[in-house]
Amino acid sequence: MSKKVAVILAGCGVYDGSEIYESVITLLALDQADAKVQCFAPDIPQMHVVNHLTGEVAEGESRQVLVEAARLARGDIQALQQARVEDFDAIIVPGGFGVAKNLCDFAVKGSDMSMNPQVLALLQSFKAAAKPVGLICIAPSMAAAIFGAGVECTIGQDADTAAAIEAMGGRHVPSEVDAIVVDNANKLVTTSAYMMAGRIREAAAGINKLVSKVLELA
Amino acid sequence: MSKKVAVILAGCGVYDGSEIYESVITLLALDQADAKVQCFAPDIPQMHVVNHLTGEVAEGESRQVLVEAARLARGDIQALQQARVEDFDAIIVPGGFGVAKNLCDFAVKGSDMSMNPQVLALLQSFKAAAKPVGLICIAPSMAAAIFGAGVECTIGQDADTAAAIEAMGGRHVPSEVDAIVVDNANKLVTTSAYMMAGRIREAAAGINKLVSKVLELA
Repeated sequence: MSKKVAVILAGCGVYDGSEIYESVITLLALDQADAKVQCFAPDIPQMHVVNHLTGEVAEGESRQVLVEAARLARGDIQALQQARVEDFDAIIVPGGFGVAKNLCDFAVKGSDMSMNPQVLALLQSFKAAAKPVGLICIAPSMAAAIFGAGVECTIGQDADTAAAIEAMGGRHVPSEVDAIVVDNANKLVTTSAYMMAGRIREAAAGINKLVSKVLELA
Repeated sequence: MSKKVAVILAGCGVYDGSEIYESVITLLALDQADAKVQCFAPDIPQMHVVNHLTGEVAEGESRQVLVEAARLARGDIQALQQARVEDFDAIIVPGGFGVAKNLCDFAVKGSDMSMNPQVLALLQSFKAAAKPVGLICIAPSMAAAIFGAGVECTIGQDADTAAAIEAMGGRHVPSEVDAIVVDNANKLVTTSAYMMAGRIREAAAGINKLVSKVLELA
């Protein structure tokens, strides 16, 4: 039987949405492992639209998270409120600033962040069902909010982000770019990807391991 | 010595830009083969902005090809006029409707299409230098314009597109989704990718072969 995996997207582009390479590598690894995938994204405005050529916020421009995330899913995506834990064996959230801007507000509030209530409820429903969760890149900044104090995760070796995770009650485990950290009690798998990666094959190395482990736990 | 490869993008999204999965798989395969990559895109308006959730053209909205393609390159992209054949060993164009809308007008004109002059000049400079060219998905619709009559290529098995290629003087070779077609005289490698693929791993199978062959010919 194919495992069924929900993938949560946050837009389309590293600076204001989901990191494209991380998302595609995740989807490729899932398909190569014969998993059945459904992408979801919240139907809300993006916090920012960033011009990825200049790195500047495009003032006055607005885009919807779900509509832009649909690019990353070739149109095959549903609004987040459609996602039900009983339909899936596992859930994965790729990284990108969109995670820290649209799924929660970690990008602006740091350890005082709060999560989008729908995103939080969905991820906590996987925890409650003891179904595995994979968080990539900056997405582990949500780990303490989802799993509570003591949850183990990694964002690689960025000191400020690690300190913020610890301030929220998480236990940050420093890691190399191609490594995963597994919190077996919580069935949480994390990898640093572009928090550390200097090139796409480095991101792929960690993400491929994360996908394998998530499917193994599912 | 690492091979140096130019990758031409046409936006970011299957319906109005470069096909995201094809582009990322290409970049991943190139990096895994130790190639050095530089992405380029024309600094022109997109023909369309398509809402990828609904499939409808977003009337009144305009986006620049180079700015949106920058999402697919994590900001590391240059305007097409910066691309010089002497800096590269090979060139690859992933597919997506953006190729047929922004790099040429095949999407609306079929076999009466014409190419963006900068794109045509750049690709012909690789032909003139006997450096390999890889065209993915719908990008082989440009093969006859670049290489002239008799050039062999594939877009898989779509009868209308194959007929249009033949009408322009190309020789269309039907192929399976995981296959490449190599025109050795022209050093042209083509694969159908999402002209045929029903899932991402099928697109990856052909694209990985295309990247290997392009690098072998370089």
